[in-house]
Amino acid sequence: MHFAFDVIGTVAFAISGVMVAMDKKLDLFGVFIIAFVTAVGGGTLRDVLIGNTPVLWMQDHIYIYIITVTVILSILLRSKIKYVRTSIFLFDSIGIGFYTLLGITKGLSVGLSPVMCIALGTMTACFGGVIRDILCNEIPVIFRKEIYATACISGGISFFLIRELPIDILYAEIFTILIIIGIRLWAVKYHISLPNIYRSFNTME
Amino acid sequence: MHFAFDVIGTVAFAISGVMVAMDKKLDLFGVFIIAFVTAVGGGTLRDVLIGNTPVLWMQDHIYIYIITVTVILSILLRSKIKYVRTSIFLFDSIGIGFYTLLGITKGLSVGLSPVMCIALGTMTACFGGVIRDILCNEIPVIFRKEIYATACISGGISFFLIRELPIDILYAEIFTILIIIGIRLWAVKYHISLPNIYRSFNTME
Amino acid sequence: MHFAFDVIGTVAFAISGVMVAMDKKLDLFGVFIIAFVTAVGGGTLRDVLIGNTPVLWMQDHIYIYIITVTVILSILLRSKIKYVRTSIFLFDSIGIGFYTLLGITKGLSVGLSPVMCIALGTMTACFGGVIRDILCNEIPVIFRKEIYATACISGGISFFLIRELPIDILYAEIFTILIIIGIRLWAVKYHISLPNIYRSFNTME
Repeated sequence: MHFAFDVIGTVAFAISGVMVAMDKKLDLFGVFIIAFVTAVGGGTLRDVLIGNTPVLWMQDHIYIYIITVTVILSILLRSKIKYVRTSIFLFDSIGIGFYTLLGITKGLSVGLSPVMCIALGTMTACFGGVIRDILCNEIPVIFRKEIYATACISGGISFFLIRELPIDILYAEIFTILIIIGIRLWAVKYHISLPNIYRSFNTME
Repeated sequence: MHFAFDVIGTVAFAISGVMVAMDKKLDLFGVFIIAFVTAVGGGTLRDVLIGNTPVLWMQDHIYIYIITVTVILSILLRSKIKYVRTSIFLFDSIGIGFYTLLGITKGLSVGLSPVMCIALGTMTACFGGVIRDILCNEIPVIFRKEIYATACISGGISFFLIRELPIDILYAEIFTILIIIGIRLWAVKYHISLPNIYRSFNTME
Repeated sequence: MHFAFDVIGTVAFAISGVMVAMDKKLDLFGVFIIAFVTAVGGGTLRDVLIGNTPVLWMQDHIYIYIITVTVILSILLRSKIKYVRTSIFLFDSIGIGFYTLLGITKGLSVGLSPVMCIALGTMTACFGGVIRDILCNEIPVIFRKEIYATACISGGISFFLIRELPIDILYAEIFTILIIIGIRLWAVKYHISLPNIYRSFNTME
């Protein structure tokens, strides 16, 4: 089941990478590289930090194949996509939902505490998008106004709460993914952002 | 004692991260992430390069807790700080002093030679500030005019010289930290910079 | 023989780093850091991804010494270089040729499949130049118009084909290096680039 999660997250992030890269008019190879880096970046950081090497995408060809097919299909079907910004945001949100959960699971499997698992899950989810944006010269997604890493952390905390309930762990995992995607969609739709820490200073000036 | 050094370095870098991030008007979470990355970035690179995984801040909750408390206090007390640029520079200098020494010590503990220890110490000290500046879209601190990495290297060389003296190793360590902070403060105060390698070319043109 | 390849690649990338850094008017230390990062960046990423730590340049002083001497000579001889852009491009091309081959060889030695070896070789070759360009605030070299990573991949595929021939493996390796350098020089000279994936969309608009 985690494998299915991984495939969905990889595809979602690869699509978001293709879209940002094509929006920047990179050439075919640049598009592929951005898609690849966005898709495997988070998992690579996770594996390097916990010392799980060779990193996951090197142990199984499936990741390179999935990304290649996703890139080709995304480029071919791109003219069908009317709302590029909305689509980037949608696929990116799906990606962080699945990758946060995978990072948490991996953290548990190497014996990390819940706090560390949530940190690892959040980094797994956010890192691909951050390097995509740095390479494409965009403001990194986590620093933009909308709630981003906060969604991952909230989802992570929910996971450790739901897990205590007498339900199958799989439901806890799926619920966690939905919470993360849901918070992100909801925050962007209603322009929710974190409390402004600068207001009080402005008043005092 | 190294643990105390680590705590001081972490707090100093976290404060410098908060200040740069607030100067850039990032939201609450952005501020936390920049503080976190600045504080653990150098140690993470160090641990990944020498293969010491899971990296240090994952093995002990104390780092996340220290950074969280530091961020909250820094935000609350920020309005008291009049000279932001001076404070960033001061806390950054304290950070590189302590982290250079910690990098050198870690290098020694895995059997690296003095030259490699100094290189590792310098990277440990500089990396947090470099990614802080890249993420905040500032010119990375090591490429600005004032002496930065040079202070770490000078301090590192001093350490291996002082260590030969018949004094307690702890004094050698504290002295090294003071040398690094001192060189940096002194260089900025008197606008000392490295010899200009371009002048001769200009003359020849 | 691989050691000789490594030295040549290190020198070539260090020179390209010095040139980009001096073009940006960095100070002496900034030039050294950019040269160092360009030269060891690719190999460091490679070693970290496959878990070969401490990374190669920490295991042998020769890399730091070679880079130091290269930087000093490059700075001294720089006024003799008339065509900076052409020289950067030339040394960079030599670097990617040698580093692609080394990455492939390292991948084979840890049992990776040909596809993964080519991916590892390409990343080894490209990463140094990418961080050099990010730190120097240039558009990363792999995203510019000319064929870059494509040359590495083509060379990598050639290597696994040539290797099947009844010739000494050393010839296969040298031939691979020449193919990569050749494709890159040829692509830049004749302004060859990848097929434009945007044209069809423009027509449809």
